[in-house]
Amino acid sequence: MIDITKIIETNKEYVKQHPELPKAGLTSHPTKKLGIVTCMDTRLVGMLEEALGFNRGEIIVIKTAGNSVTQPIDNIVQSLLVATYGMEIEDVLIIGHENCGMIDFSATTFMESMKAKGISEDAIRMIEPGLIDWMDRFHISEDNVIYTVNFLRHHPLFPKGMGFYGGMMDPDTGEFRYLEI
Amino acid sequence: MIDITKIIETNKEYVKQHPELPKAGLTSHPTKKLGIVTCMDTRLVGMLEEALGFNRGEIIVIKTAGNSVTQPIDNIVQSLLVATYGMEIEDVLIIGHENCGMIDFSATTFMESMKAKGISEDAIRMIEPGLIDWMDRFHISEDNVIYTVNFLRHHPLFPKGMGFYGGMMDPDTGEFRYLEI
Repeated sequence: MIDITKIIETNKEYVKQHPELPKAGLTSHPTKKLGIVTCMDTRLVGMLEEALGFNRGEIIVIKTAGNSVTQPIDNIVQSLLVATYGMEIEDVLIIGHENCGMIDFSATTFMESMKAKGISEDAIRMIEPGLIDWMDRFHISEDNVIYTVNFLRHHPLFPKGMGFYGGMMDPDTGEFRYLEI
Repeated sequence: MIDITKIIETNKEYVKQHPELPKAGLTSHPTKKLGIVTCMDTRLVGMLEEALGFNRGEIIVIKTAGNSVTQPIDNIVQSLLVATYGMEIEDVLIIGHENCGMIDFSATTFMESMKAKGISEDAIRMIEPGLIDWMDRFHISEDNVIYTVNFLRHHPLFPKGMGFYGGMMDPDTGEFRYLEI
């Protein structure tokens, strides 16, 4: 279980040591007009943004498992719409990474693991089609980035002139590789 | 437009200056067995994790607009399932924040803004019901966190004993406020 008391104490110390933050005068609009969509992976935490030279206030960051758009209108598309029409981003950079946990999974073994943890078969059956469609299609992280960039470029809800780009990151070294898409 | 050349150069320098990263021996499994779900807001970038005392390798981070679960099985739920059954997290902390951009939007003004940017009325009509349901329900960030924590606690796809917690962050100061839910 997480230690909430420790988190609260650590946070108090952080706030005390950063009196400059509230004076930065930042708004919800990122100054570089860029949104990054990347993976929830723990090795990218506290690393990816700095490894690309981006700071607080400059970009919006969206993170999910495998940085995949899974439906025509899903949380990623919705978030990008809010960022585009509400926070004036003009570019989106999708960043996949090598050694992504998503590649190890098949829908079958995943559902077995849920069953082993006591999840009801009815509940599992409810998600089976979506899980197969999403999980079993995810084999090569780079292809997934290319697919997502092309999908968003042709999405009817983003304005003309909006830029969609793709790249890959090495989660161990922090090395970024731009993909020509 | 983003300056890809500059990003690549900055990244090369970063990798050179961090030769210790690949030696950390991290995997996709976060050592603190914790997943954080929070907002894409630019003021939380390069701040939230540090403000709570979490480092690379310790937690998984999921980020979307307004840290909301918008469907019974959406990208957030899917990501948490992958984190739970694939990466062994045992706790989830949902962190909303004051002054969230989502509060300023109504579905109506949002759709007007899309129309003004040349999006076809047919495409807008396609998302109207979902947008109203999501956007017009989002009035108080704290209530949204409480709702999401309760929703996930009773979600049939997570195992018994999984911990779901909630908190709020001040995006200007970095101050964290734990919510008893």
